[in-house]
Amino acid sequence: MTTRRIRKEVDEALLAFVDRRRPDLLAISPDLVPLLDALDALLAGGKRLRPQFCYWGWRSAGGGEAPGIVTAAASLELLQASALVHDDVMDSSDTRRGQPSAHRRFEELHRRDGLLGAPEPFGLGAAILLGDLCLAWSGEMYESSALDPDRLARGRAVYDLMRTEVMCGQYLDVLEGARRGGTVETALRVVEYKSAKYTIERPLHLGAALAGAPPEVIETLSAYGRPLGIAFQLRDDVLGVFGDPAETGKPAGDDLREGKRTVLVALTAERAGPEQAEFLERHLGDPELDAGGVDRLRTIIEETGGLAACEEMIDRYAAEAAAALADAPLAAEAVGALEELAVAATARRA
Amino acid sequence: MTTRRIRKEVDEALLAFVDRRRPDLLAISPDLVPLLDALDALLAGGKRLRPQFCYWGWRSAGGGEAPGIVTAAASLELLQASALVHDDVMDSSDTRRGQPSAHRRFEELHRRDGLLGAPEPFGLGAAILLGDLCLAWSGEMYESSALDPDRLARGRAVYDLMRTEVMCGQYLDVLEGARRGGTVETALRVVEYKSAKYTIERPLHLGAALAGAPPEVIETLSAYGRPLGIAFQLRDDVLGVFGDPAETGKPAGDDLREGKRTVLVALTAERAGPEQAEFLERHLGDPELDAGGVDRLRTIIEETGGLAACEEMIDRYAAEAAAALADAPLAAEAVGALEELAVAATARRA
Repeated sequence: MTTRRIRKEVDEALLAFVDRRRPDLLAISPDLVPLLDALDALLAGGKRLRPQFCYWGWRSAGGGEAPGIVTAAASLELLQASALVHDDVMDSSDTRRGQPSAHRRFEELHRRDGLLGAPEPFGLGAAILLGDLCLAWSGEMYESSALDPDRLARGRAVYDLMRTEVMCGQYLDVLEGARRGGTVETALRVVEYKSAKYTIERPLHLGAALAGAPPEVIETLSAYGRPLGIAFQLRDDVLGVFGDPAETGKPAGDDLREGKRTVLVALTAERAGPEQAEFLERHLGDPELDAGGVDRLRTIIEETGGLAACEEMIDRYAAEAAAALADAPLAAEAVGALEELAVAATARRA
Repeated sequence: MTTRRIRKEVDEALLAFVDRRRPDLLAISPDLVPLLDALDALLAGGKRLRPQFCYWGWRSAGGGEAPGIVTAAASLELLQASALVHDDVMDSSDTRRGQPSAHRRFEELHRRDGLLGAPEPFGLGAAILLGDLCLAWSGEMYESSALDPDRLARGRAVYDLMRTEVMCGQYLDVLEGARRGGTVETALRVVEYKSAKYTIERPLHLGAALAGAPPEVIETLSAYGRPLGIAFQLRDDVLGVFGDPAETGKPAGDDLREGKRTVLVALTAERAGPEQAEFLERHLGDPELDAGGVDRLRTIIEETGGLAACEEMIDRYAAEAAAALADAPLAAEAVGALEELAVAATARRA
């Protein structure tokens, strides 16, 4: 299948899953419509990278065109939806995929309907529950895919590990953001668990495990997926600072206002002179940072060579990933798709 | 098995599950210790009602002493741990089971370690992630129980439904708390999904489904579990207002400060005179409510007859549950246990 075709099938599988649950929710209460609306809005966006990596992990290991694999792979989008909703609550983000974040959406509902109390706790509560529902449904969607029970049991070990890793990685990210003296090394550890494994290596492993892959296939997918996952997150860091809001769907400088302790920031801090370091320390994480402050921080990230160092790391990791595919013991049709996905993950603009 | 023996086995199963994951987390990073400590503290408490209902649902349907059933049943405690952690975040509760709530615990860690930024967002983020981890692990624990795959597949349908119901019920609860004009009827609808089904009927059904119960057993368990679940929650409402903090582990009047729109409150509002109604409307949900205000609200709940009406409902629902056990097509040893559990669920002091 082409990349485009897989994305379409993933979209259809997600819609089919949610549509099957829609009448049950409405039978509980029509008041649940806003919960479904928020979920629909969330699932309408996204690059579907994790399902694609899962699908190509499956094909890499010789898996065929079984219908269940797309459903199992698509369930990763519900897991991701849960992570995004909860992440946005934790970061107080206003937007996601160019739309209001879930908690802001529920705050708006609270205002529109003139509900009692403050909108913020209502938005917080509703968004936490929406994220919980997405997390529960991701597992349910995986289990309800049409793959046979033996395959699902093999994949489950990877799924379980991936969930634990991403949640622990996110905790380490929260901790890192609250600590002094972060280094490139500590930032990379967060990247590894919070993002790299979760986005690329584990989805590949999940697909491969479902297909019953031998150890050498798993190892090759790691050799490709691990560096690519890091390159993916480093690209995210760069887009978080320099990305075009029209393409990323997030306001310019959002990551700077949130004060994310990314590898890009650590590379900059390592290279900063005293004045630059002081400005960085004082203004990174200032929620009131204005456009001038964002510009000044961007200039520092460029002038110190932090940006160039980050781009160089992206190139190096992407090249490492590409090299792992040379003479790889993977099904031939998968290798081309993995090459294409590597470009999509690292050269993207959103 | 005796009630005490089951609780002990559930405790052991939970500890064994967490202990198996402990080294994996520490291998990711020793910084994850506080996450495990918070989980240990949470799992140390609790009445283990849901696992007990699940176990006796299994025995009701003729299930024997298979070791896997206790593990599958115990997984409900991890689901409940997730709900409690997220609930406490949503309600800004300070305590849980006589200890600091998870988010307060992480706020304290933030202060103790002199971390950057404000303690509250750190506590919030860490608690959301701990709740997510508990939710993911509940599914993992269920799937990893030693029951055979066919049984687990049958139980999964109930598990999935239960999770969706409780999350939707919690959303309706948040909504109900933000609406004017709540009635006994609307409060009861929240009780049904948020608490009654989730605490008693679905755990019973889960056990019964795992045992391969015929429809008449499922129906009998509903006839017992549905009214008992409502009685359980009504007792919770009464304890939330009149309970002894030394026994409930929650500060006196906590539910009144949170402004929970319980059935007890709706029964009181229905019966209140103009002055009482005005006081109730003005002070219920006031986070600054002092001891005098708590006393005055309690007096109103008693004087209006709201409390007596609630106690009467508890008795009526408990009697309905007991009647469902007479001549029930359930395994004899289970009937005695279900009778005992009905008392534990409704006549408790904590």
